[in-house]
Amino acid sequence: MSATTDKYAFGMIGLGVMGRSLLLNMADHGFAVAGHDKDAAKVSSLNDEAGDRAAKGFGDVKEFIQSLTTPRAIMMLVPAGKIVDAVIEELTPLLEKGDILIDGGNSHFTDTNRRVEQLEAIGLHFFGMGVSGGEEGARRGPSMMPGGDKDAYNVMKPIFEAIAAKVDGAPCVTYIGPGASGHFVKMVHNGIEYGMMQLLAETYEVMKKGLKLDNDAMQKVFAQWNEGRLQSFLLDITKDIFAFKAPGTDHLLLDDIKDEARAKGTGKWTSQVAMDLQAPIPTIDSAVSMRDMSKYKALRVKAASLYAKEPISLDGSTDEIIADLEQAFYFTMIISYAQGMHLLSNASAEYKYDLHLGEIAKIWRGGCIIRSKFLNDIFKAYEKDAKLEHLLLDSNVQSLVEGALPGIRKLLSKTIVAGIATPAYTASLSYFDAFRSERMPSNLTQAQRDYFGAHTYELIGKEGTFHTQWTKAED
Amino acid sequence: MSATTDKYAFGMIGLGVMGRSLLLNMADHGFAVAGHDKDAAKVSSLNDEAGDRAAKGFGDVKEFIQSLTTPRAIMMLVPAGKIVDAVIEELTPLLEKGDILIDGGNSHFTDTNRRVEQLEAIGLHFFGMGVSGGEEGARRGPSMMPGGDKDAYNVMKPIFEAIAAKVDGAPCVTYIGPGASGHFVKMVHNGIEYGMMQLLAETYEVMKKGLKLDNDAMQKVFAQWNEGRLQSFLLDITKDIFAFKAPGTDHLLLDDIKDEARAKGTGKWTSQVAMDLQAPIPTIDSAVSMRDMSKYKALRVKAASLYAKEPISLDGSTDEIIADLEQAFYFTMIISYAQGMHLLSNASAEYKYDLHLGEIAKIWRGGCIIRSKFLNDIFKAYEKDAKLEHLLLDSNVQSLVEGALPGIRKLLSKTIVAGIATPAYTASLSYFDAFRSERMPSNLTQAQRDYFGAHTYELIGKEGTFHTQWTKAED
Repeated sequence: MSATTDKYAFGMIGLGVMGRSLLLNMADHGFAVAGHDKDAAKVSSLNDEAGDRAAKGFGDVKEFIQSLTTPRAIMMLVPAGKIVDAVIEELTPLLEKGDILIDGGNSHFTDTNRRVEQLEAIGLHFFGMGVSGGEEGARRGPSMMPGGDKDAYNVMKPIFEAIAAKVDGAPCVTYIGPGASGHFVKMVHNGIEYGMMQLLAETYEVMKKGLKLDNDAMQKVFAQWNEGRLQSFLLDITKDIFAFKAPGTDHLLLDDIKDEARAKGTGKWTSQVAMDLQAPIPTIDSAVSMRDMSKYKALRVKAASLYAKEPISLDGSTDEIIADLEQAFYFTMIISYAQGMHLLSNASAEYKYDLHLGEIAKIWRGGCIIRSKFLNDIFKAYEKDAKLEHLLLDSNVQSLVEGALPGIRKLLSKTIVAGIATPAYTASLSYFDAFRSERMPSNLTQAQRDYFGAHTYELIGKEGTFHTQWTKAED
Repeated sequence: MSATTDKYAFGMIGLGVMGRSLLLNMADHGFAVAGHDKDAAKVSSLNDEAGDRAAKGFGDVKEFIQSLTTPRAIMMLVPAGKIVDAVIEELTPLLEKGDILIDGGNSHFTDTNRRVEQLEAIGLHFFGMGVSGGEEGARRGPSMMPGGDKDAYNVMKPIFEAIAAKVDGAPCVTYIGPGASGHFVKMVHNGIEYGMMQLLAETYEVMKKGLKLDNDAMQKVFAQWNEGRLQSFLLDITKDIFAFKAPGTDHLLLDDIKDEARAKGTGKWTSQVAMDLQAPIPTIDSAVSMRDMSKYKALRVKAASLYAKEPISLDGSTDEIIADLEQAFYFTMIISYAQGMHLLSNASAEYKYDLHLGEIAKIWRGGCIIRSKFLNDIFKAYEKDAKLEHLLLDSNVQSLVEGALPGIRKLLSKTIVAGIATPAYTASLSYFDAFRSERMPSNLTQAQRDYFGAHTYELIGKEGTFHTQWTKAED
């Protein structure tokens, strides 16, 4: 490929910031690439930014299609939902058998399933590909999760491996699996992201309301943690946020921002699908419900006027509590990943994705929003045992969890008394304590279900289901 | 009506235990009723049990239809899903305009929406009606939640009011609202039921593992609580279960039952829909995830061998801890209802159900699985203020919550240290502590979303959305 080619190796539809950044990233790596957008200004932007790179923007969709080498590889980066279907409808008459269409957005995996079937039926390969890393990642090296036809993937593999983030020289992209597996894995990535963001929010809450730390002090804690085992992209940007002044002022922009969090839905989808797959992910669920809770500002203000005495300070020295908090953070971060990986293994079995969890951990180590030092431990756990049933059963992870347990137990026993909301922290600990219960109290639930609804129960060491007329107890 | 009529006022399709019980209940109240089932044995059962009551079973569906007074009122009590559609398809050619078809099962409300539209289009009234109370309730007095056309409801009203459970003389049935509102309300009823059952399971866990109480001692606690403000149907049957010996043995049947809880899906649906409606219901979510967790018995056994030291005993005297547990139970029960009611008010606004939450609380006071003494407080709260935005804003509820707070805080600070899983308890307390937060830490979440994804944020006291190039902080 070179700047003088008149055929382009890769096409992008949707030249917003993400699409443009990915294309320029490809061009930087020597691939000739073409872009299309209905918005002429975005086409011009690409052409302006391209400089002498082999990247060209087209306003006309037919010209764009004709400019591509075959089999064509075309990615869409357009808003999820009906627009994806509209673009597909416009494109399909212009494509030829064997061409590859990639949805690089956050589509719901059930939509991707439908589109895969629809396009396979007319001889086209459809890929759902998760792309994580935001604008910066797209431009400098994202983590990518492509799912679809494996042979078709090989057409695009050199480009994707070139532009992906690298960790220890390994690209943060791999073939994920068939069908909608790429979008599924990206959805779970985002679910874990919700969990970690909620964890950071609660950590902020504990330091602010429980320890009465000022922003400078909190910045120092986040920055220091980010030098150690807690290192992660999200912690990294958090320490930046705690240093960012509102323009022209002497206080943090953070303090001016409304405490109402929005969401685009991927975290919610993760929780909803996990319930369908019967994979418990309560840490992520709690993150979803707290985003929702944040929207009820008016209600919260009323409730605060009725109920709030401000949370009381945590008992103990600040240093000691920060040390406990660090353990609690590490513990909850591990649980958040563990729940996500467990959900992935359930999905892999249910949808026949044949996911390689070690490979997924490997490509999440760089480029994406949930990249962290701990992902290397996850990668190693699955490298050691590709069939590992649950991350918490890995012996290295076990020792990390056990080391962090005293801290989280001490911390939460205090936040609960102080009245500081720590839903993700407590959900993670409860998940762990239930998970390590050889005997849960769920026999009572089954007895109740049989009592009032004749739903039957199972007996220990006996095949079959049984029903009892429990009211006889009162006879 | 009399036993000698040759036309029947109400028809039932599906003569399983629930359908038969409801019909006999109607016959007891002097209504002539007809039943149909494809299973001849069930038709015979009805005819045998009917005795000299005006209740008749038909094996032939046409005869059954022709035996009913018009406009016909026919209830289906058949398994949710495709069977409901199959019965509708079989019936519709035999029905006349103005006839009423009632789905008394636990159908998903979106299926009910579809069926309402489908049948309204051909002049039939379709009702989704929640029926709670199990076999005993159906026979002696259930709580019923009918949604559909209001005029059509009036045709059936005398029958339903006659057979419903009564509280202070008031029947536990009322017109809920249009469309699928009846099934929606029943779904939320079941979600609350999941929450309360999880609460009971955790209470059992705390007493067994934390206090090392034997079954007799636990039975006494449950029985005693059921005499006071915690009185509820679920507590009532729990005390029975703790007195029920495995036949021919000297130990509780409960101890022989596997600790793996099943679910039919209504709790899961409640959590999933709540996420769509952005109504946080973390107590119910935790119940759903713990039912799922219980299914991973083999994993839990492995985890227990790695991690478990058995939970340590709770610190303090048994009497003191039981007193705290009683407060914790009361608190969490209130939160469970409060989350359900809040979800109902969101659904009412979103789906235009025009729900009367006071009326719903009123009909839940008797007959149904979540009936309890506290439902009278809920009823009174909405009677005092029909537009009450959230149950926790009612002044009586506020005083009850505040009275129970010291107990739950003390208890959970101990269970967390002891390593006893209390996910519904902790989720309820976190929900409360977040709800009473005038300022949540969600500004950080928004700052992060803007940092990595340019998702924008809102500012306090300033219209609009804003985006910042946060990385400039590092420049």
